[in-house]
Amino acid sequence: MPEEVENTEVEEAGELETLQRERDELVDTLQRVQADFENYRKRAARDQQSLVARAHEGLVKELLPVLDDLERALEAAEAHEEAKLEEGVALVARSLADTLRKEGLEEVATDGRFDPHVHEALLSQPSEADEGTVIEVIQKGYRLGDRVLRPARVVVSSGDGG
Amino acid sequence: MPEEVENTEVEEAGELETLQRERDELVDTLQRVQADFENYRKRAARDQQSLVARAHEGLVKELLPVLDDLERALEAAEAHEEAKLEEGVALVARSLADTLRKEGLEEVATDGRFDPHVHEALLSQPSEADEGTVIEVIQKGYRLGDRVLRPARVVVSSGDGG
Repeated sequence: MPEEVENTEVEEAGELETLQRERDELVDTLQRVQADFENYRKRAARDQQSLVARAHEGLVKELLPVLDDLERALEAAEAHEEAKLEEGVALVARSLADTLRKEGLEEVATDGRFDPHVHEALLSQPSEADEGTVIEVIQKGYRLGDRVLRPARVVVSSGDGG
Repeated sequence: MPEEVENTEVEEAGELETLQRERDELVDTLQRVQADFENYRKRAARDQQSLVARAHEGLVKELLPVLDDLERALEAAEAHEEAKLEEGVALVARSLADTLRKEGLEEVATDGRFDPHVHEALLSQPSEADEGTVIEVIQKGYRLGDRVLRPARVVVSSGDGG
């Protein structure tokens, strides 16, 4: 009996030690993971700020040549050099459209039937075209990827003019 | 003696149980924190993508009226309505400059001494101005916040003309 008791004591002491070690290690690991998480969170917040800043920076930088072309066109206007002004404006329009197209900007199509997802009907008019057909575009619409930035403002045929 | 042994056994058994419970709770907590961390990481990656997309979207959307003004100016050019064209170009220039100023775009100052941080010297010319003074701007420079997007390209006085 006393021997048995001693054995049990030794075993239990060993088990206690193992458990204490395990617990201490777990506490260490938990503290480390929590610290990593906290650091990651802080870094992510910083990254997001600079990401937005850099996203804007890239686009703004691409627009500088448009500003340049525009200023030259304005100088031509001031000097009443009409041919140069017209040329300049065409250049500005092309470079701005190119820059925005590279960003993914697309015109909303307006040939065909009225589509409430991408069109806004300003009015409905009798016309020879089929009812529900877009017959005039008042203001162009634009989409960027999946998103409609602005619907096209259109006049729709009420179809009773044919 | 047997009583003492019993007490010790009971104490040790209690300690063992407490430790096992502590360990189990720590394992649970650790698994939860690790899962939270992993989810946060995934969400942060998704957020960053949509953040960049939305950052661009906002700026592109603000540029749509510039595109509109520009198209009207082009129509005036095609119709040879010179007064309307000039007016239109001035409008485009103002709205583009306003949009970019709202983004934080600023012209690099060029009055005063040459500053290699924001100026690029294209050439050096004798002039009555003090040596090292900017005497002509060939191309405007721009900065966005702390960052120089493009240095101003300038002519610098070599000072030996006075």
